[in-house]
Amino acid sequence: MRYLVTGGAGFLGSHLCEHFLKHGHEVTCVDNFSSSDGSNLRYLGGYEGFLSACLDVTQTPLSDFFDQVKFDGIFNLACPASPPFYQNMPIETTLTCVVGATNVLDLATRDNCTVLQASTSEVYGDPEVHPQTEEYRGNVNSFGPRACYDEGKRAAEALFHDYAERRNTDIRVARIFNTYGPRMLANDGRVVSNFIVQALQDKPITIYGDGSQSRSFCYVDDLISAMLRLFYADYKRPVNIGNPGEFTIKELAEKVIAITNSKSEITYHDLPVDDPIQRCPDITLAKETLLWEGPQVCLDRGLEDTVQYFMSELKDGRI
Amino acid sequence: MRYLVTGGAGFLGSHLCEHFLKHGHEVTCVDNFSSSDGSNLRYLGGYEGFLSACLDVTQTPLSDFFDQVKFDGIFNLACPASPPFYQNMPIETTLTCVVGATNVLDLATRDNCTVLQASTSEVYGDPEVHPQTEEYRGNVNSFGPRACYDEGKRAAEALFHDYAERRNTDIRVARIFNTYGPRMLANDGRVVSNFIVQALQDKPITIYGDGSQSRSFCYVDDLISAMLRLFYADYKRPVNIGNPGEFTIKELAEKVIAITNSKSEITYHDLPVDDPIQRCPDITLAKETLLWEGPQVCLDRGLEDTVQYFMSELKDGRI
Repeated sequence: MRYLVTGGAGFLGSHLCEHFLKHGHEVTCVDNFSSSDGSNLRYLGGYEGFLSACLDVTQTPLSDFFDQVKFDGIFNLACPASPPFYQNMPIETTLTCVVGATNVLDLATRDNCTVLQASTSEVYGDPEVHPQTEEYRGNVNSFGPRACYDEGKRAAEALFHDYAERRNTDIRVARIFNTYGPRMLANDGRVVSNFIVQALQDKPITIYGDGSQSRSFCYVDDLISAMLRLFYADYKRPVNIGNPGEFTIKELAEKVIAITNSKSEITYHDLPVDDPIQRCPDITLAKETLLWEGPQVCLDRGLEDTVQYFMSELKDGRI
Repeated sequence: MRYLVTGGAGFLGSHLCEHFLKHGHEVTCVDNFSSSDGSNLRYLGGYEGFLSACLDVTQTPLSDFFDQVKFDGIFNLACPASPPFYQNMPIETTLTCVVGATNVLDLATRDNCTVLQASTSEVYGDPEVHPQTEEYRGNVNSFGPRACYDEGKRAAEALFHDYAERRNTDIRVARIFNTYGPRMLANDGRVVSNFIVQALQDKPITIYGDGSQSRSFCYVDDLISAMLRLFYADYKRPVNIGNPGEFTIKELAEKVIAITNSKSEITYHDLPVDDPIQRCPDITLAKETLLWEGPQVCLDRGLEDTVQYFMSELKDGRI
């Protein structure tokens, strides 16, 4: 089979590409490297059947670019996904979400193949309902510093809905909650990579707010496993994918310090505007619909693997 | 002054164009006539200084099209705005909202002029807070039959926010609540025009649901007046514009029957999916910030004028 992964050079994208390559499939990665440095391609370049194209899904119609190729499945992961990155290019982020969505949807419609949208728990914004089910409509500020991503992803869901309704496109929509693991960027501003890199360098661990806000952290292998189940299932509505185990940011910092045996101290800083206080997936639907057993990797084990990865990155001078 | 009005052939757009023309300004109307039939141009064509271009804001970069022209102000009203129209072209609607927004924002940035976005009470979805203030984040289903419009308009607000922040574009965002008056399309599925045309033809008046859902109806002159105040004010965040007087749909039907002296009977039909139960603007911000006195035209007078308009349309065979 031949799969297209947009954003394939990113954290999740590279794991997904590698999964398919390991199973003997052909994979084409499309990425504009706006929020990844291409270094994840080193895990993929050795596989036969891997192709990488540097292009922007808002600029190049994929149906034109791939006019001689037919895909058997498409994963749309192209978008800056961490606040420092998407807030640094907010207009491009919204357009990547919306124009990028129509681009992959047009291609999937042409090729009559399944297309999976990497949606996000950010569609719930700063939720007032816990845990969040897929029915919850969210609490998003449409006119704020996170809106470029949140509203872009919401509008992309609307487009996926309408292509399914109007053009019979075979869509999947995964609402991805916080995920962590090897190949996260050291500098992407996400809390797990931030804390680990700070701890490994014995630098102060920066908590925004008082650290009592909670997050659920899903290890990347669990996330990819559930995403693939969704892709092969016949379910065309949004599905939450994540780990419902909740930890406060302070607990995470303490775990990281313990695992890395770090001398870092915790420092507290102002909470950014519109930062969600709590977010946790209700994964009942995923378990029932995808026959998914739920996450298998506990936070301690996942953090240990992630720490190993960043230690190696530091040792090799890549951070 | 030279103003650009996208969607200038529509209901609100044509009133806005005429206002400027009456005051001796030049007006360029851009419209693709996807949800208007061009008949409103008959009110504008007689004015010197009126130009109309048939183009699609998702297809043609306005900065290229108007490379020899500089505008002093832009009003972005281009979008199908009634559910039957936008649900008939959902993908195009989302793209009009999002790509259209970047298009006018790019032009306003180039011309260093103010650009006003016609946003909508639909950003509040089916609200759980009454009346709605601008702080309320809404209750929108991102994956449903109204999402193309609601999420498109929310994403457009995000883009206006980010152009203001990043490119210093001089933005205005009007969240427009239900508006009615002469030049509504007879067939656009909005409740006021529906009821009046049905009543004038002695056909059954179709209420969806039990008629107890409420709406606030703002007469077009009041809306345009407030929108102009916003345009000339120095306030760059969203502002509700509408009439906070609430009436149930059933009350509206009875008023219309009385005014038209109609033999129509009321019939009840299933409520459409995601139809809001109640919507009413809190216009405190508009009153304080724009020194707006609030709506001046009561529903009875506004309906009488609107009935006169549709009677004339019927008499002239245009319905």
